[in-house]
Amino acid sequence: MDFPKLLTDVPKKVENKDLDNILAYTVRQEVINLAGGLPDPSVFPHEQLRDIAERVLKENFDKALQYSPATGVPEFKKEIVSYLSRGLGITGITEDQILVSSGSQEALFALAMTTVSPGDYVFTENPTYYVAVSVFRAFDSVLSGAPIVKGQLNVDLLEGKVKETPPERRKLVYVMPNAQNPTGASMSEETKKHLLEVAERYDLTIVEDDPYSLINYEGKTPRPLKAMDKENRVIYMSTMSKVLAPGLRLGWMVADPYLVKAVTNVKQVIDLNTNTLSQYVAAYALKSRVIENNLENVRRVYTSKRNAMVDELSEVFKDKVEFVKPESGMFVFALFKGVNTRTALEKAIANSVLYLPGDSLYVSDPQYNSARLNFTYPSEDKIREGVRRLKKTFY
Amino acid sequence: MDFPKLLTDVPKKVENKDLDNILAYTVRQEVINLAGGLPDPSVFPHEQLRDIAERVLKENFDKALQYSPATGVPEFKKEIVSYLSRGLGITGITEDQILVSSGSQEALFALAMTTVSPGDYVFTENPTYYVAVSVFRAFDSVLSGAPIVKGQLNVDLLEGKVKETPPERRKLVYVMPNAQNPTGASMSEETKKHLLEVAERYDLTIVEDDPYSLINYEGKTPRPLKAMDKENRVIYMSTMSKVLAPGLRLGWMVADPYLVKAVTNVKQVIDLNTNTLSQYVAAYALKSRVIENNLENVRRVYTSKRNAMVDELSEVFKDKVEFVKPESGMFVFALFKGVNTRTALEKAIANSVLYLPGDSLYVSDPQYNSARLNFTYPSEDKIREGVRRLKKTFY
Repeated sequence: MDFPKLLTDVPKKVENKDLDNILAYTVRQEVINLAGGLPDPSVFPHEQLRDIAERVLKENFDKALQYSPATGVPEFKKEIVSYLSRGLGITGITEDQILVSSGSQEALFALAMTTVSPGDYVFTENPTYYVAVSVFRAFDSVLSGAPIVKGQLNVDLLEGKVKETPPERRKLVYVMPNAQNPTGASMSEETKKHLLEVAERYDLTIVEDDPYSLINYEGKTPRPLKAMDKENRVIYMSTMSKVLAPGLRLGWMVADPYLVKAVTNVKQVIDLNTNTLSQYVAAYALKSRVIENNLENVRRVYTSKRNAMVDELSEVFKDKVEFVKPESGMFVFALFKGVNTRTALEKAIANSVLYLPGDSLYVSDPQYNSARLNFTYPSEDKIREGVRRLKKTFY
Repeated sequence: MDFPKLLTDVPKKVENKDLDNILAYTVRQEVINLAGGLPDPSVFPHEQLRDIAERVLKENFDKALQYSPATGVPEFKKEIVSYLSRGLGITGITEDQILVSSGSQEALFALAMTTVSPGDYVFTENPTYYVAVSVFRAFDSVLSGAPIVKGQLNVDLLEGKVKETPPERRKLVYVMPNAQNPTGASMSEETKKHLLEVAERYDLTIVEDDPYSLINYEGKTPRPLKAMDKENRVIYMSTMSKVLAPGLRLGWMVADPYLVKAVTNVKQVIDLNTNTLSQYVAAYALKSRVIENNLENVRRVYTSKRNAMVDELSEVFKDKVEFVKPESGMFVFALFKGVNTRTALEKAIANSVLYLPGDSLYVSDPQYNSARLNFTYPSEDKIREGVRRLKKTFY
């Protein structure tokens, strides 16, 4: 069989060699993995989830084990509405504005397929979340990125990029205002307002990807763009993956009902509906405040790990490293003076430490001295040892 | 906001008004729904699944609640290999030939995105599974169908259709050899061999969608095409939805490792990975033979329901109805003499009975007197009453 002749160019367009590498080396016990993006399983509220799973399968087994509506289980959508309102100040949302998805990744994919034609522009932060880039590339969009300077998106440069493009080609602005992946940067209120103004001026639709805003380390939860959005201009995406558990594979999109209906048509042909059992488990968890009650613990564990990483980076690398100390999220994005992190990767692997080279996270003008470092999964000892192995690798 | 201007033509291409209708009327208690395709929740082994969920979240919570490999949880893939071998005679499969997906629907979607370029031909049975049609249409393939005559695909006509198309445009042959949706027909061994011969002659790749072969009612499990495939020419898809529970949202694809890798690239940008918790639950269920031990019960309940439907149809409609008595699966596909099931739908709804009009299940030459009738979800009383309401509607 001549399998290559069967393929379109899509698998190549979306292929991610770094991701494959990460997975391949993750299984090697001696390797300290700072490249991934996994939560620490010790913070999963597994006993509560066990109780909940038992209750769901006793009280609601007929519905929880069945197919469910493509837009999501009504009980779960109702709880999402309440959760967004009480935790994040996103109010006035109705259930017909919500689409439940298999992680927010699937909502992003379905939204891109619903909106992006080849040659359409998607404006992003630069660098940005690499799997989002793959999604937009899968639909042949042109990516145009504006830099994050000292932790703030340069909105003026973004506006400049927008101006340069034909109005009918301006499709989406994809941003992570809180704990941006990879930079860990969070937009100030001023930056958020500026971005909304520009979006209004050019009639742009913003996609706000917000997995992390409740996972914060300085005692305050930042306000999502969506909470400041008066025109349904912001399509908001979030997930249970960081606040509860990624294994439940649940995310959602909040948007105008017209868009929700269109994206649901597409989501339906992708997988009919999102995992029903998980949706019931998450609905029960939200209703009984398992997530909110667990957040303090998550923040405590991750604050300590973040501190271990930034302290060790500063101590070991001194003035050879540059980064924004993340106020939330899971990553430190570091620039190492005079280092090419792409070419150094092989040596790092020989030294049993893995990071995500930053160059492939840029949509243009890659910084070859950058690396994304995860601090949530490894233990504090491993974080410190991992940073020392980076030193040995780079200098 | 001008939301319509944001959209591509994809949501329209994949829209399914019948599906929307079914969902809308399903919530009306008085309506007898013969249109859907739901299993009977009374056959879900919910107590065993409760025990298993508890064990998974005790013994493996750290892995079951975490992200997992895009191709699937290794423990689950291992169990699938064994299950295919002992239950269906599909032997010699290795784990790198398996991609786990969110229902087999997602595998089909990702495969189509991986292989189908606009203008490529996909050959199908006519009528065929309507959500598969939507998937292929989403990627602008040309659908070419060969009829099922007296329960057997007319392979000669399929060959004729293949011959008419440019070789480089022949992409996939999509079939359901066992309990075809919607017709309920199952291919004889002879038809299967003939189809494989034609595929070999024209170097075609076959997609075998096989959700039902273990849900059979005549005491024997049919042999999948895949069990007769010596060249990895058959891409096999199946699911936990009918043998265990759809709410777990699990399916898989079996194919050559080269194809699995390409489709995995695409699956990864759709949703990163399939629900981890469900995969562990299903792995435990397979390992402890929960599915095999439950099959007898499923078959008993559905055989009785099928008999109720075919008996009532024959009794009520006499020579005005034509159908193949399904040996497995969930549907009877009936042709009603002189009736237009599309225009009669409104009256049926007024009579509180719902069916799926058959015309939209054809890729060409629709039969307007056809309807797909589900017998697994409604009770036997409702099945009989539903058939009587159809009589009142049609004649």
